[in-house]
Amino acid sequence: MSRTITRHDLADLARGAALLGTGGGGDPYVGRLLVERAMLTGSGTITLLDPGELGDDDLVIPVAQMGAPTVMVEKIPGGGEAVAALRALEERLGRRADATMPIECGGINSMMPLLVAARTGLPVVDADGMGRAFPELQMETFSVYGVPGSPLAIGGENGETVIIDTGADNARMEWLARGITIRMGGVAHIAEYAMSGADVKRTAVPNTLGLGLRIGRALREAREEHRDPVQALAAAMEGTLYDKVRVLFRGKVVDVERRTVAGFARGHARLAAFQGPGELELTFQNEHLVARADGRVRCVVPDLICVLDADSGEPITTEGLRYGQRAVVVGISTPALMRTPEALAVFGPRAFGLDIDFRPVEDLVSP
Amino acid sequence: MSRTITRHDLADLARGAALLGTGGGGDPYVGRLLVERAMLTGSGTITLLDPGELGDDDLVIPVAQMGAPTVMVEKIPGGGEAVAALRALEERLGRRADATMPIECGGINSMMPLLVAARTGLPVVDADGMGRAFPELQMETFSVYGVPGSPLAIGGENGETVIIDTGADNARMEWLARGITIRMGGVAHIAEYAMSGADVKRTAVPNTLGLGLRIGRALREAREEHRDPVQALAAAMEGTLYDKVRVLFRGKVVDVERRTVAGFARGHARLAAFQGPGELELTFQNEHLVARADGRVRCVVPDLICVLDADSGEPITTEGLRYGQRAVVVGISTPALMRTPEALAVFGPRAFGLDIDFRPVEDLVSP
Repeated sequence: MSRTITRHDLADLARGAALLGTGGGGDPYVGRLLVERAMLTGSGTITLLDPGELGDDDLVIPVAQMGAPTVMVEKIPGGGEAVAALRALEERLGRRADATMPIECGGINSMMPLLVAARTGLPVVDADGMGRAFPELQMETFSVYGVPGSPLAIGGENGETVIIDTGADNARMEWLARGITIRMGGVAHIAEYAMSGADVKRTAVPNTLGLGLRIGRALREAREEHRDPVQALAAAMEGTLYDKVRVLFRGKVVDVERRTVAGFARGHARLAAFQGPGELELTFQNEHLVARADGRVRCVVPDLICVLDADSGEPITTEGLRYGQRAVVVGISTPALMRTPEALAVFGPRAFGLDIDFRPVEDLVSP
Repeated sequence: MSRTITRHDLADLARGAALLGTGGGGDPYVGRLLVERAMLTGSGTITLLDPGELGDDDLVIPVAQMGAPTVMVEKIPGGGEAVAALRALEERLGRRADATMPIECGGINSMMPLLVAARTGLPVVDADGMGRAFPELQMETFSVYGVPGSPLAIGGENGETVIIDTGADNARMEWLARGITIRMGGVAHIAEYAMSGADVKRTAVPNTLGLGLRIGRALREAREEHRDPVQALAAAMEGTLYDKVRVLFRGKVVDVERRTVAGFARGHARLAAFQGPGELELTFQNEHLVARADGRVRCVVPDLICVLDADSGEPITTEGLRYGQRAVVVGISTPALMRTPEALAVFGPRAFGLDIDFRPVEDLVSP
């Protein structure tokens, strides 16, 4: 059933979305400020729709920011770009949207649909196409289960719009949209995967905004009550589609190598155990892709690899990784519809050029 | 009045267009083959319209290939891309074109509108927006005199389309379209500067396809009759908008430095006199921008700098420049509407980052 989001929910949602971003998806902090400001006018609330509430013929248009997280934290949106993308896509389709939706529930893209909702009055569907964050636009459950991303609309900071139509080829759509994103300075705002309510129910990962809110609240309360954040996280995940939580490593960040290249933030980070030998290496393309402890794979995409501040439990994004941080690295099982062979072909390890087969985190690490 | 182009005109037109391309615009050879093949079906002729024959409310949609000439000679179009761009723009505008037109009369873009005409039956307006070739899309008389290039449509080799709308900002349109061109492998096909017949008459350089045909025929006949190609060229230019022809240099190509960078072919070429001292340096970005003899400017953009084979009179494109070629370099005055202050602001030397003021070739070099 539908629920209402107020300004007071945003900090918790941003925290949970930063965790579900698995290091990427862009820091939700800036997005939260934009949504907070937009909510000062109008009703001051945003309606969250359960996917089951959608009519089969409703038109849902997801919106997002795309680009390198390293750029996203420096290039602040005006706030109207994603609305402009939505309107451009509506004009192309000759039909108004009945709701908007996240394409990914991790990072700043948990916030962009709320920003559009606050500015347009549209409801937001509580579901997404990644169940986390991924760096590329074809890496969506929508794509895996047959929804074309095209036509895609881009709204730029000067009021310019771009419409890209690559038919059913969502990887080509990503390639061309990334070219425009680079030309726009490394960040762009998009509307894509316009689909029917029936397709949302068939292809989306459900209730991931609600999950983000629940995770963020659990981490905050653990900190306020001086409880262990990982235990709180595991408790929050119980009964959800993400119910296996494993500690992969505890230690200090001793090295970060990060480059913004071809529109992505790519790199590695190394953590050393607090005491004694033992090392964890993280490899990322916007998001963490694989965690290797002493050379052995402990968790690999699309399972979630999340870095938390060891004391406060705050999620740390890849662009926020710094030498000397004390961290706990957690692996979380991804929902079953993201572990099918057709899903792994699109966003499993080999889709990122890694020479690794997917193995579930619960098989790699004991509780 | 309207005239007809047959397959037998194409070789002459290609030769003349290569000259008007001032080294760039892409080698018209490939374009000519595509048009020849397309003309084998249908009526076998293409109608060329004088701009004066257009109704003021007619819709004219120019088409072109964009990219680095170094790539254009290697990446052969299928032939339908420019038609797809035209159709995508018609759909966006909600109206069918009454005619197509070149955006530049130099190089392969003299041929692309003929290809579209042969495949669609549309007539081609005998006029263009550069009166030569330029490397960037805002460098058009259309733009100088107030016609927006947007919306621009791109047709790709896999049937994909992109629509870019930057309002009145034609330089931003170029920037974004170049990003897509790079992602498409260095070449794309576009439809842009859709305009009324009245705007064609007000802003286009008239009768430049006819001029290309005349130049190509003059150079061929001079070769067949063993006459001097430069004298034949000067005679062909008499009474046209391009009536000052000057020999800048005769010599051998001794050095070529050429890179394909950011979607353009950029570089320098040096020629040494056949006998004794004396050197000419050519600087190009797709097209030749400036010719300096012994350090002194002899001809500068937007005047035309054309390199011809010293013996055959065949124009040599920048990507065709080779060590050891024997060449004559000719400067040609550009039409008056391309030398106004507002035109020079868009495609004069400083628009290319050159620290030179424009001076007419007839003031720099005596006959």
